[in-house]
Amino acid sequence: MQLIDGKAISDQIKVEIAREVEQIKKNGGKIPHLAAILVGNDGPSETYVAHKVKDCEEVGFVSTLLRFDASISEETLINEIKKVNANSDIDGLIVQLPVPKHISEAKIIETIDPAKDVDGFHPINMGRMLIGLPSYISATPAGIVELIRRYKIQTSGKNCVVIGRSNIVGKPISNLLAQKSDFGNATVTMCHSRTKNIEEICRNADIIIAALGKPEFITASMVKDGAVVIDVGITRIKSEKTKSGFKLVGDVKFDEVAPKCSFITPVPGGVGPMTRVSLLQNTLLSAKKIIYQ
Amino acid sequence: MQLIDGKAISDQIKVEIAREVEQIKKNGGKIPHLAAILVGNDGPSETYVAHKVKDCEEVGFVSTLLRFDASISEETLINEIKKVNANSDIDGLIVQLPVPKHISEAKIIETIDPAKDVDGFHPINMGRMLIGLPSYISATPAGIVELIRRYKIQTSGKNCVVIGRSNIVGKPISNLLAQKSDFGNATVTMCHSRTKNIEEICRNADIIIAALGKPEFITASMVKDGAVVIDVGITRIKSEKTKSGFKLVGDVKFDEVAPKCSFITPVPGGVGPMTRVSLLQNTLLSAKKIIYQ
Repeated sequence: MQLIDGKAISDQIKVEIAREVEQIKKNGGKIPHLAAILVGNDGPSETYVAHKVKDCEEVGFVSTLLRFDASISEETLINEIKKVNANSDIDGLIVQLPVPKHISEAKIIETIDPAKDVDGFHPINMGRMLIGLPSYISATPAGIVELIRRYKIQTSGKNCVVIGRSNIVGKPISNLLAQKSDFGNATVTMCHSRTKNIEEICRNADIIIAALGKPEFITASMVKDGAVVIDVGITRIKSEKTKSGFKLVGDVKFDEVAPKCSFITPVPGGVGPMTRVSLLQNTLLSAKKIIYQ
Repeated sequence: MQLIDGKAISDQIKVEIAREVEQIKKNGGKIPHLAAILVGNDGPSETYVAHKVKDCEEVGFVSTLLRFDASISEETLINEIKKVNANSDIDGLIVQLPVPKHISEAKIIETIDPAKDVDGFHPINMGRMLIGLPSYISATPAGIVELIRRYKIQTSGKNCVVIGRSNIVGKPISNLLAQKSDFGNATVTMCHSRTKNIEEICRNADIIIAALGKPEFITASMVKDGAVVIDVGITRIKSEKTKSGFKLVGDVKFDEVAPKCSFITPVPGGVGPMTRVSLLQNTLLSAKKIIYQ
């Protein structure tokens, strides 16, 4: 069994990006610049955005945090997004979700210039991803693909089961793994809450991507010997063994599943750190005008 | 075994649309208007466009056929598309594919106003479909969904196998059938040229959508008793039994598979006629501003 060390890989990628930024500076080029919009004072959102700003600093990107009161009107927010779209110094723009209920999330996302949509949530990027055109791929599926690439995990012709059909994980990763590409060509089955024979389907899988958000849902009896298991779930549950009284667990019962696997991601330290680094990679792609010219 | 009569259903839908157009006329409303762009003189394209114009006439739509020489520049074609985008009388615009090689198909499609993209090929419509937002769904998957609806075929919790991963059939229909909706919630496996155990996968399927374009690929031994089989393939092969010396066959060996099925589409007369009527349905949706306001 080989542990997929998302923390180590993400650290390595950050070093690679930092080196590239150094090179850009040396050549007198423009430093990649990420702008983040935060509306209101939601606790977790504050943390996520702070992480993103910190990650930018670490690799040498410029970052701008634009904060607005929770009472901002949809129209004003849309105008603020348009200003960022028009600002040629800014390469990437993310709007931290969720936005307050009086603002349409879909409208906000569709206002972002697709060429700056480094979260990859704009339907045009989702659509381009689906039909195999260059696009920004959202953080979690991009992170999973990067792990598959760096660990040289074979996907072609493999039976892959994705559990969960969310717009930001299940749907994109299913389509990416099925696609003609060097990390794709898998035979993908997408399972969800209505799937009837999920245990049996999992037992036939060479690769399992668990992204349903149910702690320790995947047990040893659902996994065949030698399978690859990628655990996207992360839930905070009570624990008597930790000082804080809580611990983080994934969608996989790690202790019993791990011994059967050829590769497995831990939680935390697996997919999680990769999602953070994906945003940096997309911002660099934008600065280099790789996806949109 | 029940035969899914795509010809009869599509005729019925055309009657329904014609009635609605009559009603619009009575109320002094604007008649739905489809514009088709045809570049060059490709034989099959001429036929397809002629059918589309004829279908419009049948239901009482206005249609405009814009013809351009095969030598038209990409820039000029793009400007012509922009003119149609700006023409408020035109509800739907299709550009008959393929376009000559010196013109980028992707650029042409992305120039069409998504609100008039009744072929549903624009990445923004593909993306909206993927994430479950209102969108134009392209002709073949829309036709399949309509057959499933009208024949009240149960999809929720069913094992569905889609064979083929094309952008216009396999990918969209896989995602539609997996989605939360009254014609979705299936557990979908997408198979393709790299799939290794396709016979076994098919034998476990409650619903098979064959869209690989290989004549009579699906045989009786690949289909379980009571399965639903939707045949998207249509290939012209030599035949000594017909006057023309040719006959049309699907991806399914109909004679041996049909007796095992609960529902099956014939070729021709199954999915084919439904794809033609889908374009009319999308044009009507556009005229009524159902998808985009």
